[in-house]
Amino acid sequence: MKKELTGCTEQELLELHRSAAETYERYRSMGLHLDMSRGKPSPEQLDLGEDVLRTVCSNEDCISPSGVDCRNYGEFWGLRELRQLFSEILNVPSEMILIGGNSSLTLMYDTLSRAMLSGMAHSERPWSKEEKIRFICPSPGYDRHYTICEALGIEMISVPLTGDGPDMDLVEQIAASDASVKGMWIIPTYSNPTGDIYSEKTLRRLAFMGAKAKDFTIMVDNAYPLHTLDGNFIEPVNFYEMLIEAGHPDRAVFFSSTSKITFAAGGVSCIAMSDANMKIALPYLKAQFICKDKLNQLRHLRLFPDLDAVKERMLLHAALLAPKFRVVDDVLSDHLWGYGIASWNHPKGGYFISLKVLDHTAQHVIRLCKEAGLVLTQAGAGFPYNQDPDDRYIRLAPSFPGIDELKTAAELLSAAVLLAGTEKLISDRRQ
Amino acid sequence: MKKELTGCTEQELLELHRSAAETYERYRSMGLHLDMSRGKPSPEQLDLGEDVLRTVCSNEDCISPSGVDCRNYGEFWGLRELRQLFSEILNVPSEMILIGGNSSLTLMYDTLSRAMLSGMAHSERPWSKEEKIRFICPSPGYDRHYTICEALGIEMISVPLTGDGPDMDLVEQIAASDASVKGMWIIPTYSNPTGDIYSEKTLRRLAFMGAKAKDFTIMVDNAYPLHTLDGNFIEPVNFYEMLIEAGHPDRAVFFSSTSKITFAAGGVSCIAMSDANMKIALPYLKAQFICKDKLNQLRHLRLFPDLDAVKERMLLHAALLAPKFRVVDDVLSDHLWGYGIASWNHPKGGYFISLKVLDHTAQHVIRLCKEAGLVLTQAGAGFPYNQDPDDRYIRLAPSFPGIDELKTAAELLSAAVLLAGTEKLISDRRQ
Repeated sequence: MKKELTGCTEQELLELHRSAAETYERYRSMGLHLDMSRGKPSPEQLDLGEDVLRTVCSNEDCISPSGVDCRNYGEFWGLRELRQLFSEILNVPSEMILIGGNSSLTLMYDTLSRAMLSGMAHSERPWSKEEKIRFICPSPGYDRHYTICEALGIEMISVPLTGDGPDMDLVEQIAASDASVKGMWIIPTYSNPTGDIYSEKTLRRLAFMGAKAKDFTIMVDNAYPLHTLDGNFIEPVNFYEMLIEAGHPDRAVFFSSTSKITFAAGGVSCIAMSDANMKIALPYLKAQFICKDKLNQLRHLRLFPDLDAVKERMLLHAALLAPKFRVVDDVLSDHLWGYGIASWNHPKGGYFISLKVLDHTAQHVIRLCKEAGLVLTQAGAGFPYNQDPDDRYIRLAPSFPGIDELKTAAELLSAAVLLAGTEKLISDRRQ
Repeated sequence: MKKELTGCTEQELLELHRSAAETYERYRSMGLHLDMSRGKPSPEQLDLGEDVLRTVCSNEDCISPSGVDCRNYGEFWGLRELRQLFSEILNVPSEMILIGGNSSLTLMYDTLSRAMLSGMAHSERPWSKEEKIRFICPSPGYDRHYTICEALGIEMISVPLTGDGPDMDLVEQIAASDASVKGMWIIPTYSNPTGDIYSEKTLRRLAFMGAKAKDFTIMVDNAYPLHTLDGNFIEPVNFYEMLIEAGHPDRAVFFSSTSKITFAAGGVSCIAMSDANMKIALPYLKAQFICKDKLNQLRHLRLFPDLDAVKERMLLHAALLAPKFRVVDDVLSDHLWGYGIASWNHPKGGYFISLKVLDHTAQHVIRLCKEAGLVLTQAGAGFPYNQDPDDRYIRLAPSFPGIDELKTAAELLSAAVLLAGTEKLISDRRQ
């Protein structure tokens, strides 16, 4: 059992620091090239998708179950059967589903860009005509959500996560008090990077809460609904039904994709919104495209005739991913647990581990790792404007590297955390 | 040799009208279901693309020539080799090329939507902050360009085409006199639907002309650069070089796609713009996507290692399309030529025939055809706001139906043109 560092003498801290520095230098001298920075599927995971590549390989094979020639124009909304599948994944009626291209991020950007140009249901004017637009951002969160806000000039308000969603007292207070707060981002299942699973209670509060902006819009990024690591699937909560019950059917727009089910670069995405929101969006959407890539829709449909087929596939991913998460967790536990200078989550699904280190040391740790050949997500990336106020969160993405690499990476990382932590504590004492 | 109808006696007109009505009724009683409304490739043309489907069918086959795993994230700009190919198609440096998804229309919408949010190079403010934004629209033109303008609130000014591009005196005058005129659409090769091929002189005038709006932007929709019908390829004009020579490097944004080279629904598209314009666009683009579908990029690259391969493919398309255009031309010539109530172009490439009928009869002809089971593009569709001022243009799309169907369709159409034309002339005389 390790001793909490705050209870150590300066001598003990110096000894630990020296030993961590030694370990760190040993790794640094190895000339490593490791990367835990992005949630990229590994080649082995991508290999699972080969059956997607083996379908739709001849002219005869291009006809959808309902008789659509997927090579030609048509089917603006996407293939009926794929809309049905996504409706089960997102828990919304299939008539609400529009199939997109390879990126749900694009659908998110487009949604907010349209809001800027035209507003959402219940908007008094286009958002670009408002003096200020603000969004609630549960943090740490997905950096690319914040990039969209920044590009469109949407001011961001950071709200902490609790494990089952954001601090709802704070969310309710902000939403109720400020009409410029037009919406928020949520990743309801296996949040990036904290692994939060939004509870039914949290979702009910989001559905029912008062919002000063009548057009308050929750961007529901359901990127990981079935992305289990422990083999169990989350009991889905019908958020859309809650919204209807609450009298706020237009409050949410839903997104999902197969980027982490089949191919990061060659999957299919979808968006779902209420009739009132679709009525506003449709003239823009109809101007934007004639149809999406139905051949790729058909490939996915062939592989996934129903939700069970997707779940089966996700268990194969879990079998590849779980040992990777475990090795990182094990190494961090071995080297850091007990010192009281680092904690991390044990996600039940998703793509990330969120590591919390001693305040004001995250940047230092990331720099140390970089100098020794391990690339981590840049400091603050989980926060609006890249500003982690206490400089303590580090996002780890264990999906891409191999087990041995991850072991080395986690050992180096542990040494860096210990090095930066002891240094900080020693310097604090001397002040 | 037929007699010009304006030189006919009323008796002769009545006789012709009776005979046209008889023919028309004969076709109407046949319960036809024919469609010449959209520029859709035929199943036989789509069949040509089978080799695109037969590549990238295994895990080993997903690596690009320069070593990129096309299944995973990465390569924001698209595959290097495909950018090179499009650079030859568009006559712009390959560094300017960004590969898109399956639709160049989406890239066009996105470009103007970004202009609304942020402006273009040399803009004083975002276009949405201007009191009015206007665009020059050479007409008849592509209806979906106008849909984009309508969706974004861009006012349209129609300018006639001459065969080698728009009436440039008029274009120069409008662009020079009005700062709210922020740009124009052009389809420089085989314009939809007139088949115009922009001459070098027209393009030089577009490059060099003065424009009151410093951010005047030409949307160059090069949808049909190699879409020959007669087997000859247009000598490409280097418009971008002209723009640089003219000191207006930021004046144009270029678009193309393989929608009518491989699959209407499953091709790849591209956009090219100057550094100054890209600098403004990039924060939005980076917020919009991580990468596009590189698997589909790779499929296309396998099929088209170079421009010659594309040209070879286009000759196969021409072999399927040319007889279809010929049969429509032949039937129209047989039944209408000489009466002086209809003229049409003989396109060297592209997807359309533009039929010009007696003033104020186009809507009537289209309605007659519809009632007899032949769907044509809706009246006025080639004009801003669907307003063909003289109600005389009908767009014919002969690509999709079979030869026999086209013969029947063109015969019915001829009868309808003659029926509406004689009726109009008779009624004019009686007034």
